[in-house]
Amino acid sequence: MSLQNLQLRSLVKADNTLELSLHEYAMPQPGPDEVIVRVEATPLNPSDLALLLGPADIGSLRVSGGPDRPVVTADIPDMFTKMVAARRGQSLPAGSEGAGTVIAAGSSDAAQALLGKTVGMAGGEMYARYRLISTRACLPLPAGTTAIDGASCFVNPMTVLGMVETMHAEGHKALVHTAAASNLGQMLNRVCQEDGIELVNIVRTAEQAELLKHLGAQYVCNSSSDDFTAELTAALAATGATLAYDATGGGRLASKILTCMEAVAAAAMTEYNRYGSDVYKQVYVYGFLDRNPTTLNINYGFSWGMGGWLLTHFLQKASLPKMLAMRARVASGLRTTFASHYSREISLLEALSVPVITAYARQATGEKYLIRPQL
Amino acid sequence: MSLQNLQLRSLVKADNTLELSLHEYAMPQPGPDEVIVRVEATPLNPSDLALLLGPADIGSLRVSGGPDRPVVTADIPDMFTKMVAARRGQSLPAGSEGAGTVIAAGSSDAAQALLGKTVGMAGGEMYARYRLISTRACLPLPAGTTAIDGASCFVNPMTVLGMVETMHAEGHKALVHTAAASNLGQMLNRVCQEDGIELVNIVRTAEQAELLKHLGAQYVCNSSSDDFTAELTAALAATGATLAYDATGGGRLASKILTCMEAVAAAAMTEYNRYGSDVYKQVYVYGFLDRNPTTLNINYGFSWGMGGWLLTHFLQKASLPKMLAMRARVASGLRTTFASHYSREISLLEALSVPVITAYARQATGEKYLIRPQL
Repeated sequence: MSLQNLQLRSLVKADNTLELSLHEYAMPQPGPDEVIVRVEATPLNPSDLALLLGPADIGSLRVSGGPDRPVVTADIPDMFTKMVAARRGQSLPAGSEGAGTVIAAGSSDAAQALLGKTVGMAGGEMYARYRLISTRACLPLPAGTTAIDGASCFVNPMTVLGMVETMHAEGHKALVHTAAASNLGQMLNRVCQEDGIELVNIVRTAEQAELLKHLGAQYVCNSSSDDFTAELTAALAATGATLAYDATGGGRLASKILTCMEAVAAAAMTEYNRYGSDVYKQVYVYGFLDRNPTTLNINYGFSWGMGGWLLTHFLQKASLPKMLAMRARVASGLRTTFASHYSREISLLEALSVPVITAYARQATGEKYLIRPQL
Repeated sequence: MSLQNLQLRSLVKADNTLELSLHEYAMPQPGPDEVIVRVEATPLNPSDLALLLGPADIGSLRVSGGPDRPVVTADIPDMFTKMVAARRGQSLPAGSEGAGTVIAAGSSDAAQALLGKTVGMAGGEMYARYRLISTRACLPLPAGTTAIDGASCFVNPMTVLGMVETMHAEGHKALVHTAAASNLGQMLNRVCQEDGIELVNIVRTAEQAELLKHLGAQYVCNSSSDDFTAELTAALAATGATLAYDATGGGRLASKILTCMEAVAAAAMTEYNRYGSDVYKQVYVYGFLDRNPTTLNINYGFSWGMGGWLLTHFLQKASLPKMLAMRARVASGLRTTFASHYSREISLLEALSVPVITAYARQATGEKYLIRPQL
């Protein structure tokens, strides 16, 4: 059997253009503890788009090459060329997660046991017909769970569970989440409901607020509302939330959350302290939907922290039993708690079409595209 | 013996004026484990000024009352009235630390043992002729160490040692410090030299840079220099510093330090990672010399943190043996490593004179006033 792979790659060239293309090559044989998975569904997450498109100017997209092997080129604006210096000249496969059927397996028992199974996968290089992968990176899906159900089995579900684990580990009792109507936000809402954790959802529009309330969210604050500060403060007082996960990154929202948390803590103080309250308040930034600089008005004393939060770093520190328990919970809930919904399914070739790229590059919050490499 | 105390107090009134005045009252008798200390020297730290003067408009200072009991009043600008809401109506004694002679003692052995001794103190209410205080808050000074030597035995020395302890506890190996020519900065410079810790000093003027180099500092970067970014990056690369203490708080300096730390980490990476380096970078803000909003340009990945750092919070978490060891080190070094120098000595009455207040409210970095309540 000589399988021909077709793999989507992103390359920043010396002239500061970004190039997307399909690479064709013969799949190697799996090693003893490896399998070959036929990739049947793989999502376009915001973090995947960051690798695929970088900071390229979507308005400058053009196509060369034939209809079967298009080469898409886009310009990288001068102001962003420093950002991509470290990846220049490297042809990078994309796609962080996916699911499909194991069609070849190495000699080990673990590999042989997966043959014919539908598995979810993490580890990159998923925008391809096939993926050669270690058995340890495969999550066998329960009976009745399809590859489409399992395509997003890693990034959002493990992020949501990692956020909740971090909350417990760092001694907080309730959560705040921004951009809360996103696919990830809806998932966090379901997990918090299951686990009895109070969650303050921050959204930007009345429609998003309605959506979350319809999904049973108890605390939803609209940052576009004139009463946002008062509503957020009331929700923080009601829940006791002192930890926020912020997907927006830029602007003033993170600082505003800390200010409102401190207002709740200060209201409970019996005597004046010029250094503010002792209640520790934390915001973790895990995304950059807002590319503006982040502005802090530090009127919340000295008992606060802000920092980056990344699933990879969380998993590096998590124990193996903890991680296996998280994976098992995800696998059993892929059609319920951890279900993802897709606004559009596209083929690998369509992923290189200018109108389609333009559309997925501008996905609205809550929208998500799915690549189906076998189409 | 009926001692009459004279105590300096700061009050924010209902009309949003700030009032400084001297309160006279008879000292109570010490309890079994208390002593009365005749305060002979007590410094005007920046944090003391924050309590004493708050955000009052120094240009609006005026005096009423007689020459022996002046009452100084200043306006609080409208934009700052929210900041002082929590202390309105409370007559607050000021002065966080000081030193003097124990002139009365309670019945316990610990109290009696201090009688006649020169002690350093922390705990507030030091801008007064006398301080009734627990024996546990007294640090007996070694022979040959005067009250003036011991006046600043707590805030700066314990902050400097707490910063170094935090560095060890959190796994960093070298430090960055801003406003590094300050009294505290010079002390940190001496402690780091003693302990063999590499320290990157950031200052704002060529004169400050010269001062620190004259004091043996190896790495000094001037933020006003055109080459600041390159110089800071080189110093971070040479020292491996991944922890900074920032006294300025506002502006772009904290973010700039994280950017340069990430540049050093990125230069050591062998392959591209769109999430940045795994090297954890931390800035602790411990002061607000720059009252502008804090601006972060988060181009340093996800492995970073920023937060408040306060000596009180550090000490709450420190073990008793650790804290006693820190105090002993300070006591033995008050004339050397932990020596403070004062630009001017004033009496309690002078501390209420408009020209003197105007001068100490505008102390330059590295300047420090000393109150001598017995003058």
